[in-house]
Amino acid sequence: MQKRKMVYEGKAKRVYETDQDGIYIVSYKDDATAFNGQKRGSILGKGAINNQVTNHLMQLLEKEGIPTHFIEQLNDTETAVRRVRIIPLEVIVRSIAAGSLATRLGLEEGTVLKSTVLEFCFKRDDLGDPLVNSSHIRALGLATDEQLSFISSYALKINSILSAYLQEVGIALIDFKLEFGVTDSGQLVLADEISPDTCRFWDTKTGKKLDKDRFRRDLGDVEEAYQEVMHRLLGRA
Amino acid sequence: MQKRKMVYEGKAKRVYETDQDGIYIVSYKDDATAFNGQKRGSILGKGAINNQVTNHLMQLLEKEGIPTHFIEQLNDTETAVRRVRIIPLEVIVRSIAAGSLATRLGLEEGTVLKSTVLEFCFKRDDLGDPLVNSSHIRALGLATDEQLSFISSYALKINSILSAYLQEVGIALIDFKLEFGVTDSGQLVLADEISPDTCRFWDTKTGKKLDKDRFRRDLGDVEEAYQEVMHRLLGRA
Repeated sequence: MQKRKMVYEGKAKRVYETDQDGIYIVSYKDDATAFNGQKRGSILGKGAINNQVTNHLMQLLEKEGIPTHFIEQLNDTETAVRRVRIIPLEVIVRSIAAGSLATRLGLEEGTVLKSTVLEFCFKRDDLGDPLVNSSHIRALGLATDEQLSFISSYALKINSILSAYLQEVGIALIDFKLEFGVTDSGQLVLADEISPDTCRFWDTKTGKKLDKDRFRRDLGDVEEAYQEVMHRLLGRA
Repeated sequence: MQKRKMVYEGKAKRVYETDQDGIYIVSYKDDATAFNGQKRGSILGKGAINNQVTNHLMQLLEKEGIPTHFIEQLNDTETAVRRVRIIPLEVIVRSIAAGSLATRLGLEEGTVLKSTVLEFCFKRDDLGDPLVNSSHIRALGLATDEQLSFISSYALKINSILSAYLQEVGIALIDFKLEFGVTDSGQLVLADEISPDTCRFWDTKTGKKLDKDRFRRDLGDVEEAYQEVMHRLLGRA
């Protein structure tokens, strides 16, 4: 498979067309940004870790019946995926209050939520990715009611699958962000990534943060935390 | 009916206990605030207008099958209402983009929304009344699923009734905020007020704003706009 024109460059990934119709290559970068791009830096080895962690979890989810864009890993930082039109929503699932939720609702970080919180943010960097509800999504035509219904049920199922799986390796899944897309044939699939950039992972014993909050909040041991997640999921080979 | 102890003082109203169990007196003030209390002022005659406009519209809604806290108007600025425990949600219904919605979602003020937008904000001045969705409401225990379902259907029905009614007097209902409460006997009822303080009213012919945005945005003719709304609804008697 040959890389062709770059079609998208985001904060942490580049996406390329290929010589095969309907297939893109995602290339993960070590670049890190936070606070809507206001904080910038680099996390050594992050691209390779996020690529491999994402692919590992996407394959797990596929086995459990969640359709994803994953095709095959090409090398440490690159993966072939199905071409999708991304639905412009960040889909956030939360089991424990942290980050923006804790701030916005006045909850102490670490508060166990009585029930799972599912949030949608309109993907618009210039607006700061504002929170929207189903009536906003309908009024703005961001997704159809059918898509939203599938997205909601997939997101909750993914939460159950990942929470149980991560628990086995001593990681508590606090919250995470998903993105979905529609393939050329019209299928709704999970896209983007599932990694320490897009999830909050806390060590179940020590509570140590094993995710991008170490970068956001200058907690140190950033590279080590990313490596720790990869090692727990993929082994120390 | 005798006023007793004041049980609540808000930005625009005081609420008193009475000598009758289960009945409160609401007393409307001329005080005006905006931007979560950062801007303060007074609108001459506002208390009397908001009291009478609210009561007029509450009685209309009662006739159309919406239960409300209204009992009877006592004088120009005071009304007897059923005692309720307020559900800590601002319920906002929007037909046209304006105010915070236009800003947050990057829409031009006046954009007709493809479908009605229904928003819930958690009533917490110290947090700036953050937007919440049904999963936040459930996780925080702000309302039961049954209450939320009734509130949503009442809010949309109220929008239909009021939009049609106001259209007859040349007023377009752009958006409005409602609050609901639960009576001692457990009934969910519409509470608070429906007035130029809590609704956006635009003249259907000229587009002139006939609501609190004249105060918020220093547009002048503030008192005149409030009077105009009252006159159109209650006649010029």
